[in-house]
Amino acid sequence: MNSSNERLFIGIDLGGTKIASALVDADMRIIDRIKIATRPEEGPSAVIGRMLDTVRDLAARKGCDVSDVRAIGIGCPGPLDQETGIVLDAPNLMWKDVSLASPMAEATGRPVYLENDANVAALAENRLGAGRGARHMMYITVSTGIGSGLILGGKLYVGATGAAGELGHVTMLADGPLCGCGNRGCLESLASGTAIARRAREVAARPGGEGILKAARGDITAIEASLVASAAAAGDAAAAAIMHDAFEYLGIAVANVVNLLNLDMVVIGGGVARVGDVLFDTVRRLVRLRSFACMARDVTIVPASLGADAGALGAACYAAEALAVREQHGVGC
Amino acid sequence: MNSSNERLFIGIDLGGTKIASALVDADMRIIDRIKIATRPEEGPSAVIGRMLDTVRDLAARKGCDVSDVRAIGIGCPGPLDQETGIVLDAPNLMWKDVSLASPMAEATGRPVYLENDANVAALAENRLGAGRGARHMMYITVSTGIGSGLILGGKLYVGATGAAGELGHVTMLADGPLCGCGNRGCLESLASGTAIARRAREVAARPGGEGILKAARGDITAIEASLVASAAAAGDAAAAAIMHDAFEYLGIAVANVVNLLNLDMVVIGGGVARVGDVLFDTVRRLVRLRSFACMARDVTIVPASLGADAGALGAACYAAEALAVREQHGVGC
Repeated sequence: MNSSNERLFIGIDLGGTKIASALVDADMRIIDRIKIATRPEEGPSAVIGRMLDTVRDLAARKGCDVSDVRAIGIGCPGPLDQETGIVLDAPNLMWKDVSLASPMAEATGRPVYLENDANVAALAENRLGAGRGARHMMYITVSTGIGSGLILGGKLYVGATGAAGELGHVTMLADGPLCGCGNRGCLESLASGTAIARRAREVAARPGGEGILKAARGDITAIEASLVASAAAAGDAAAAAIMHDAFEYLGIAVANVVNLLNLDMVVIGGGVARVGDVLFDTVRRLVRLRSFACMARDVTIVPASLGADAGALGAACYAAEALAVREQHGVGC
Repeated sequence: MNSSNERLFIGIDLGGTKIASALVDADMRIIDRIKIATRPEEGPSAVIGRMLDTVRDLAARKGCDVSDVRAIGIGCPGPLDQETGIVLDAPNLMWKDVSLASPMAEATGRPVYLENDANVAALAENRLGAGRGARHMMYITVSTGIGSGLILGGKLYVGATGAAGELGHVTMLADGPLCGCGNRGCLESLASGTAIARRAREVAARPGGEGILKAARGDITAIEASLVASAAAAGDAAAAAIMHDAFEYLGIAVANVVNLLNLDMVVIGGGVARVGDVLFDTVRRLVRLRSFACMARDVTIVPASLGADAGALGAACYAAEALAVREQHGVGC
């Protein structure tokens, strides 16, 4: 049985395909995990219902009650209103203006805190992962899209209205490819997994792209970023050039942020970052080439270390820190 | 005569050509100004000697003693070490590793604080100028070069080693013109007064550039950014296109910072910004076009309002705030 002074927290990473939740202790050590399918097509109420089931299951499996959980944090995609706990626009979830914190708090009786998924992952890597000890850090996730979160002066930086950290949508090439956000030449349209796959499909249809086409067994539609990475690793020059170009854009974007924010650390995670050295070496080279020497020298660029746990752990961290601030200001929980 | 509780501060704006100093009261109202030539060719000792003369003159003209001044702030160019008060590298001054705060503090007996010139100007515009009330703000000066300073969460943000805010050296065009910093395609190489003048000299030498050449009375070497602005205002299409291209790069850079930092205000000053609407309209249009709608909506982009006083006023503000922090932490002054 749980003693009431054990200080448990639950972190929930709400994604378009799965919901990863974790029960953690006050030191943010994971006690238990539950991963379920999101099934957004069933609508917000069903998804929120499944999130509540997860919360109850995590408590029950630990042999305690939901009331023993100090607070619940949720990392979710899209712009959101942290104050009101409303998800404003999350295309992956097909959600628009969905109130998430209130129904979760009402059903559990616990304080519920919402924050952007890349932001909570940044917090997790800073507090518990590869970015531990960094005061000024950027976390970047390179996956189907590109997200990022900033820790400045040791705190999560969210900007004027909570929307900061859209590194995926800085313009890298004024006349570049159309991005999902409506802008042209965003970093995401040039260096994400989706961008790498799109470029590889174009190349595979032309002379010189035979190696990529062969790796896809002749099926252009089967080309994904991971296939391009494998082909590049196996020595295909066209695939290697596509990866190289993508990571050069990523490197220039990181060099720009270093010049702007004089960071001490950049942590890069997400599926695409699993290619390892070919990404990190390129990004480090571009920072040396394009950032001021004094700032390039002082920044460490490393792979994320928390993997799939970053979201849920970050959400739990965020809830614990938000609760601590609230208690410090004398608002009862 | 001055009463000892009047709380006077002195701010010094140390530039390559002139030193602008101001005596201010605790509300940062300017009581007196002195502007002298820097004459860096005479060496650091002579320049520091002249700065000390200015400090003594400002006190004397007010009918008080230097000991009545609470603290002295200095805004100076180049990377510097705020802790040791050393100017590391200021090409305009021909200074390398020059100790500035110590000799000033020793000779005056007052605390002396050093900060980057763009950073103190950002502080001045935020505390006293066009950026008053903004919690998350960028100040940009577009002049012969491009400098910037960040106010994040109401405080001057200087990053891991005090060097943050180099917006002039973010890469906007990977294969762009060579920049003074050694990198290619920096914003400064595309949108500064120097860049506008260089581009106009190229255009003036070719068919289509007759209007610019005529405005320069046939002397290509006489072409400066102000001349290009005048020619554009007088209806010359080639000059207008040069200005437009430069301000589009500036606009994209600002849009990128807005997406990254979700600012509530961007304040733009410097000689080139005096062209007014043609710059501000372009920057605002690019931010609407390329930043997320929710962030573009929440940011105000305005001209700086303190003009030539920004540097000295900002240096005085910086000194007053640094002293307040020091006194709060119980270190006697």
